[in-house]
Amino acid sequence: MMEGLFMLPALGISVFQKETMSVKGFAWSIGVILLLSLLCSLYGNKSERRFYAKEGMVCVGFSWILLSVLGCLPFYISREIPSFVDALFETVSGFTTTGASILSSVEDMSKGLLYWRSFSHWIGGMGVLVFVLAITSVGGSETGFTMHLLRAESAGPNVGKLTPKMKTTASILYWMYIALTALNVVFLLLGEMPVFEALCTAFGTAGTGGFGVANDSLAGYSPYIQNVTSIFMLLFGVNFSFYYLLMMKRFREFFKEEELRMYLGCVLIAVCLIVWNLRGVYDGFGETLRHALFQVSSIITTTGFATTDFAQWPEFSKAVLLCLMAIGACAGSTAGGFKCSRVLLLMKNARRSIRKVVRPQKVQAVRCNGHAVGEKVLDNISSYLVLYVLIIASSFFLISVDGYDLTTNISAVMACVNNVGPGFGLVGPTGNYGGYSILSKLVLIVDMLVGRLEIFPILILISRSTWRRK
Amino acid sequence: MMEGLFMLPALGISVFQKETMSVKGFAWSIGVILLLSLLCSLYGNKSERRFYAKEGMVCVGFSWILLSVLGCLPFYISREIPSFVDALFETVSGFTTTGASILSSVEDMSKGLLYWRSFSHWIGGMGVLVFVLAITSVGGSETGFTMHLLRAESAGPNVGKLTPKMKTTASILYWMYIALTALNVVFLLLGEMPVFEALCTAFGTAGTGGFGVANDSLAGYSPYIQNVTSIFMLLFGVNFSFYYLLMMKRFREFFKEEELRMYLGCVLIAVCLIVWNLRGVYDGFGETLRHALFQVSSIITTTGFATTDFAQWPEFSKAVLLCLMAIGACAGSTAGGFKCSRVLLLMKNARRSIRKVVRPQKVQAVRCNGHAVGEKVLDNISSYLVLYVLIIASSFFLISVDGYDLTTNISAVMACVNNVGPGFGLVGPTGNYGGYSILSKLVLIVDMLVGRLEIFPILILISRSTWRRK
Repeated sequence: MMEGLFMLPALGISVFQKETMSVKGFAWSIGVILLLSLLCSLYGNKSERRFYAKEGMVCVGFSWILLSVLGCLPFYISREIPSFVDALFETVSGFTTTGASILSSVEDMSKGLLYWRSFSHWIGGMGVLVFVLAITSVGGSETGFTMHLLRAESAGPNVGKLTPKMKTTASILYWMYIALTALNVVFLLLGEMPVFEALCTAFGTAGTGGFGVANDSLAGYSPYIQNVTSIFMLLFGVNFSFYYLLMMKRFREFFKEEELRMYLGCVLIAVCLIVWNLRGVYDGFGETLRHALFQVSSIITTTGFATTDFAQWPEFSKAVLLCLMAIGACAGSTAGGFKCSRVLLLMKNARRSIRKVVRPQKVQAVRCNGHAVGEKVLDNISSYLVLYVLIIASSFFLISVDGYDLTTNISAVMACVNNVGPGFGLVGPTGNYGGYSILSKLVLIVDMLVGRLEIFPILILISRSTWRRK
Repeated sequence: MMEGLFMLPALGISVFQKETMSVKGFAWSIGVILLLSLLCSLYGNKSERRFYAKEGMVCVGFSWILLSVLGCLPFYISREIPSFVDALFETVSGFTTTGASILSSVEDMSKGLLYWRSFSHWIGGMGVLVFVLAITSVGGSETGFTMHLLRAESAGPNVGKLTPKMKTTASILYWMYIALTALNVVFLLLGEMPVFEALCTAFGTAGTGGFGVANDSLAGYSPYIQNVTSIFMLLFGVNFSFYYLLMMKRFREFFKEEELRMYLGCVLIAVCLIVWNLRGVYDGFGETLRHALFQVSSIITTTGFATTDFAQWPEFSKAVLLCLMAIGACAGSTAGGFKCSRVLLLMKNARRSIRKVVRPQKVQAVRCNGHAVGEKVLDNISSYLVLYVLIIASSFFLISVDGYDLTTNISAVMACVNNVGPGFGLVGPTGNYGGYSILSKLVLIVDMLVGRLEIFPILILISRSTWRRK
């Protein structure tokens, strides 16, 4: 029902712009959604069953799929995206804040659908369910249900509870998210960006999604707007719980967070390397720096906006970007990817495994921010990497059937699993995913969902043992 | 001193062929090696210090580097490879049984050096140190020293002891290796291959190395010779302890080995997929099957011979080969790669981690060949994958500075870390590694050593904590 409500502004824009087909698309979609919610609330099972991890995971995985199937109806019914799989791809890409598109020209779309496309990033950004949870407080109690939902939904190993009450936490995150988005819109409007474009760009930035309203993404806008977007992308890639430290005026703790240091360190090093590698490509240092910063911010936060066709950059710069794709931004932000904190703990754990051979008797704990990290957390991150590698390898294998080149296929899988959007080769910033076969698109749809929901919910949803009776 | 002795046949061939420069190269190298061994045996520290894991690892890592540095002298002194780093690359590639070459035309080399090049594969095949151990029984005692040496040297998690006595084990492995090589030579000679070429090809096959004596690898030989080589490559990729089961007439156990099943299953599936993908490329089913089987055997066993330029195959076939590179053959064989048993246990462990969420109360063990696998083994394999991924990512990053395309760089790193040899793009079967900068060659040299010695010895050798005083 929330999704139906979320579609209303888009319907309004369509009516205002007199876009007959999209009005029809939204009207029918809202009708279908409301009918479905009515049926569910009438005939749904209201018994208070206990929710364990399994049920939480299945529920989250299924919700995202349901929301995506319903969310793609406007595209499909309005015939602006005639193929259902394409419409689903675009919607999943929106809700998972990936930003990968099958459209060759977004400028041909109606305003209403463009708005819905960008707004889906914003909804997806903090996780549709954290939203629903914060607004409607499903279940009423803070334990059980919400606990397991958050476990599946929230990003990374490091989130922690900001306050003892889960509902308060969700609501703080939610307001910070709205405030930052509003600030972003204001800064864009100050740069004389039209309101519609400012809203869509801010939605894409806030959700670290990357759907734009122009065919050349942000290349056509002023340097001011590009720089504002660079900075806001970086801000949305920071762990939101760190902002809570700022709000509580715990500045020292904020700047001591190892994840934040690693994140900013990666950005700094990547920008330096790319500026060095791009010397002579653009006019002057200032322009090179602007493009380097923008692309680095866009890729590490897994947004996917572009101010230039980075698929044409020299190979070393592309290698830097490919590594950033895999690293991703901070856990607990709206970004995808493997997350800085996981990479940090993986590296610390790897170093320890070498030290263990050297000094087998000595008990050595992996420490982060001064605290010892539990062995269970470290084990989980290792299993996470194993699943991550297996999923990337098998997806790469499956989409290779289509016969595109290795660069395109590897970067397509990396861009989808890490929720980045554009890759290199045929799926670069000027290309799109429209050329892949239906099978490959379905594989990439699963990849986007798997990446966004941090692997487990989707795998558990399709695992045989979940559905077997005891 | 063993290495000096191993050089004698190559010196003999050079003398016989009247190759002045290589005679000079070998004579000087043998002189230097013998002088060094004499100095070491006179002034070396003979105190009976205890060997722990750390010392074993450092010793193995250092030995391979020393052997490679000494082994590259003939190439360098004879001026046939004028650059020292190139000569070192070629020798490390030989001893690690990688088969990656910087030479654009091997046919221009002298026979003596070609023999030494191929023979280094054979020496490397079972691990130079298992050899030295088996022949000279260093240290005398079966515990401590040999134990830790074998731990670093032997491939994979699954080797086990064949017999209680380590020395007997080494000697059984050693004789099986010699017998299989001899059988290979006989079969090649039956196909009317000249003796010199048969020896070199058999060395390359036995060590799963891949250095050939012709510029087009095995493309110019008869289908019979190609098929014989396919089969012997597959045989050398089987865990040697499985042959011990055959020798003991424990056939049922042999065919029940899950690793063997997975290995043969991978070969079968890969051949079918490639034959399907290559339909219409070659003349008829028979030729397609021969090329598919040869290339699959060559890549999964990480040998690297070629009967056709597989870098020109359709992208899907290349994706299949790239996956095979990473999987590799059985542990306890001469092959490199991640090893079937590790992949098998990783996948079983991944499946369990999903089941754990679904049924948190149930204690679930990962089973292999009917036995429960220890948690420590599973943890080690996960850490192994983590290090493996980190090494591949950072090597890819470093060699990208040279500016080659992504296909070339990724396949170069994969081919070196997994000890395969040829990759795709510029480092394909018709290309070579000569174009890379010195820095990149050094990175790839480290990759080959890291891959061959299963990561730990080299990392421990260069780890700061190893050299810090207590």
